[in-house]
Amino acid sequence: MAPIAVTHVVEAAKPSKTTGNRKSAVEETGESIRLAARAGEYTDQTSGVAPTYVQANLIVLPSQYASDFRLLCRRNPVPCPLLAESKEVGRWDQLQSWIQGVTGDQITKDLDIRNDISKYMVYENGNLTKSHCHNVEAEWTEDHVGFLIGCSYSFETALTAAGLLPAHTAHGRNVPMYRTKIPLCPAGVFQHSTYVVSMRPYRRRDIEKVRGITRPYVATHGEPIDWGWDAVERLGIQDLSRPEYGEAPIATDGSPLVRGMGIEDDELVPVFWGCGVTPQEAIRRAKPEGTVIGHAPGHMLVLDIRDWDIIPKQEEIPI
Amino acid sequence: MAPIAVTHVVEAAKPSKTTGNRKSAVEETGESIRLAARAGEYTDQTSGVAPTYVQANLIVLPSQYASDFRLLCRRNPVPCPLLAESKEVGRWDQLQSWIQGVTGDQITKDLDIRNDISKYMVYENGNLTKSHCHNVEAEWTEDHVGFLIGCSYSFETALTAAGLLPAHTAHGRNVPMYRTKIPLCPAGVFQHSTYVVSMRPYRRRDIEKVRGITRPYVATHGEPIDWGWDAVERLGIQDLSRPEYGEAPIATDGSPLVRGMGIEDDELVPVFWGCGVTPQEAIRRAKPEGTVIGHAPGHMLVLDIRDWDIIPKQEEIPI
Repeated sequence: MAPIAVTHVVEAAKPSKTTGNRKSAVEETGESIRLAARAGEYTDQTSGVAPTYVQANLIVLPSQYASDFRLLCRRNPVPCPLLAESKEVGRWDQLQSWIQGVTGDQITKDLDIRNDISKYMVYENGNLTKSHCHNVEAEWTEDHVGFLIGCSYSFETALTAAGLLPAHTAHGRNVPMYRTKIPLCPAGVFQHSTYVVSMRPYRRRDIEKVRGITRPYVATHGEPIDWGWDAVERLGIQDLSRPEYGEAPIATDGSPLVRGMGIEDDELVPVFWGCGVTPQEAIRRAKPEGTVIGHAPGHMLVLDIRDWDIIPKQEEIPI
Repeated sequence: MAPIAVTHVVEAAKPSKTTGNRKSAVEETGESIRLAARAGEYTDQTSGVAPTYVQANLIVLPSQYASDFRLLCRRNPVPCPLLAESKEVGRWDQLQSWIQGVTGDQITKDLDIRNDISKYMVYENGNLTKSHCHNVEAEWTEDHVGFLIGCSYSFETALTAAGLLPAHTAHGRNVPMYRTKIPLCPAGVFQHSTYVVSMRPYRRRDIEKVRGITRPYVATHGEPIDWGWDAVERLGIQDLSRPEYGEAPIATDGSPLVRGMGIEDDELVPVFWGCGVTPQEAIRRAKPEGTVIGHAPGHMLVLDIRDWDIIPKQEEIPI
């Protein structure tokens, strides 16, 4: 493919975009967003919402696949950092935490996994059967286990604070996400799947700074997995202007954020992070029997814990 | 490349091969092998040695790279499962364990990282300067940190017990190891490196059994990352008969273990696991300043802990 470059970047912090029918930015917490989604009052995506509150990707599986999925996360912690799961099979209201020093109750005091995300996806035998539905009460059974995976929105606050506001946030859009050819390490039934990545454009000279800021966020994908125009080919991305998930990189005025041009040291380049939509790709590949539920990409579960609660100390890296 | 197949396989358990000048197989423990290597009496590779004693890959780095290397392991736990590291910077005799429920003293009661491996590799500024040397006393400094990475030899005992003796063990050879094009997730200075894999041929009908047996060994690479003839191309391996590390798959009578032939369901296929030589490839890529030490591929540090000590329980999978 011809190289393309991103034409817009906003480095200064800006007020967060309009996000549907929330009452006021000052009231936003993880709980307030969950309760609003549960009441059907919050229906938007969640990029930039409730800053510093950790957001999570969701996968809900029949219990027979729980062990393999847990192993998939363990073997692929960059795209699939496991934060928590249902405390017991069938529990949609309580979590077991996988974050050291954090309890399930601290992650979400008041939880209904079936209702607290603004939009869901439903798969039957690995095939998408419902897209962007508002709750999954009818789909949830006593045999389901919910898994929460870290989300890169968590480090966007830190990037913004450092003067590196992500372009998609500046333009009030969902982050673009792409299928890649980078293989996941298989785990049981989950085979032959590949990484999904999110993309944020940054100036080449800022890349080491961007890497350094996101590096400690190991529970929410950490530092980028690749960057630069060469990375587009290495990752096997077909067309940067047509992401498989999220929204194309287009500015609020409708102008494209990407255009054909050469590469200069001082130009913007795409930077790619592991993405928590990866497990949904794995579901499509593995085609597990029965009903699987995920969040709609960009529509995350917003938690009670804060970004700083999930940065591990050095002494917390056991096998 | 043309598909090639492995012509020999041995499924029955066999006595371990002749392994240099060890006195007797019945006396073999991790400690006895370490002390023999320290005394210059054990100089061979360690596949099939001291069965059930965990073996480890070694990387020794200047302290300024320790943090990035720890993160590299954390982000790539399949090729780089971190078992332990020097208890403090400069310590070659005591370990800090990263295995839950196991202390450093339990991993090795009597240790001299500079002498207890039969053969070492030395890199200066990322370039190999010494190959297969017997000790690294002269190279070790007070600024060095040693890291131990799990080794796939640990699950070979379990495979053998299940009637799936690895072909290289049956033929008294080192396991073949190959460079691949599968990227590691970068961490700090460690960028643009790729997986190294080990290969063991198995019958196609045995692959699910092989996967199941090795799956629990998450601290020693776990289940295979890929398998079958298609995998050779997916991994970007140029020539299966010419591994970059270890020994070519050739039988004791000199006949090749690989030959050109078509693929049949009932034929042997190559099965690939993540390999602890991966960090040495990362060193060659990153070219860290100063002296880096590794084990010679196949010549591992044999520990006091046993294979069953490193199989984690389900409740031990924190972020």
